[in-house]
Amino acid sequence: MNSGVFITFEGPDGAGKTTILSMVANHFKEAMVTREPGGIDIAEQIRKVILNKENTAMDPRTEALLYAAARRQHLIEKVKPALEEGKMVLCDRFVDSSLAYQGYARDLGIDEVWSINQFAIEMLMPQLTIYFDIEPELGLKRINKNKEREINRLDLENLEFHQKVRDGYYLLMERFPDRIARIDASGTVEEVYEQTVKMIKDKLAK
Amino acid sequence: MNSGVFITFEGPDGAGKTTILSMVANHFKEAMVTREPGGIDIAEQIRKVILNKENTAMDPRTEALLYAAARRQHLIEKVKPALEEGKMVLCDRFVDSSLAYQGYARDLGIDEVWSINQFAIEMLMPQLTIYFDIEPELGLKRINKNKEREINRLDLENLEFHQKVRDGYYLLMERFPDRIARIDASGTVEEVYEQTVKMIKDKLAK
Repeated sequence: MNSGVFITFEGPDGAGKTTILSMVANHFKEAMVTREPGGIDIAEQIRKVILNKENTAMDPRTEALLYAAARRQHLIEKVKPALEEGKMVLCDRFVDSSLAYQGYARDLGIDEVWSINQFAIEMLMPQLTIYFDIEPELGLKRINKNKEREINRLDLENLEFHQKVRDGYYLLMERFPDRIARIDASGTVEEVYEQTVKMIKDKLAK
Repeated sequence: MNSGVFITFEGPDGAGKTTILSMVANHFKEAMVTREPGGIDIAEQIRKVILNKENTAMDPRTEALLYAAARRQHLIEKVKPALEEGKMVLCDRFVDSSLAYQGYARDLGIDEVWSINQFAIEMLMPQLTIYFDIEPELGLKRINKNKEREINRLDLENLEFHQKVRDGYYLLMERFPDRIARIDASGTVEEVYEQTVKMIKDKLAK
């Protein structure tokens, strides 16, 4: 059986989760850090189909099935073996990204996207999911911080979409209160980092 | 809404279903004949990943999700538009192949493979599925008819697997009695063809 600890990091771009993740990995030196497709050859091939710019006819459900397929292969080839060796696995985005982005914000339905992901991961869910929460406006500001310009129409569409993604994550927190913990990501990197390490240590102590 | 008629052909290789299908297509000249991936670019790309001989590490659940993804895209780009134009669509293998081969014979579970396929096809199920039933020994003999040789160990493993596939199809007939109709495929091509045409005409008359 799995003796390692599986922890996933969630939240929008601009919340700083990838920065925090690399700092946390530096703290827990024995941890394996990964994100899908994670260098797994079959998962990379699948992602190539998803991201191929010529595939403009791709149906959203086809895309969701492909994400679930890549997730399955990454889980089986990389995450599961590490957990079986007793390692801590820190994964940048996992099933909740599909639920919040495709299930909720893109209107496929959380339950429906959840059903294909249950098939993909069986019972191998993270013990802890840290959701880095930030106001969409602030997230966008951080992403654009090096670009001196006004907020444009595309940004506004973007804001509306990211508000919907955030609503999706809030629904997921209600649904999985024991698994998903929220961190306010509006603070400084140092503050967010310290809260994250504390949250993981509390989990490990249980 | 769909005003066409969607009919799928199922059964093992050696039952003669592809031969019968082309004869039937000749009879119903307005019908569109297809099979997955059916020349749909995105579905072809997905099949390439499935069939890539180097992908020996592919997990059976990854494979099932990829088949469902290719099915979705073929359905949306090719089958659905034809049905909406009022055409008859004849499809060589569809969801029941995944259920019988992967769900039952490969032990992933009929219910589990059904759940991801429900996501893929939504409610777009065939009005009629014709199952061409044949004893595995006879099917194998037909496939090997031009090869003069004894049955070997691999053939025996094959027979056992195809018996399991057949058991899977029988379970599906119990589960979907209104949709799946069985034809005894042990007769001559002419006999099987005539039964098939009659079955389709009866369906159209309803």
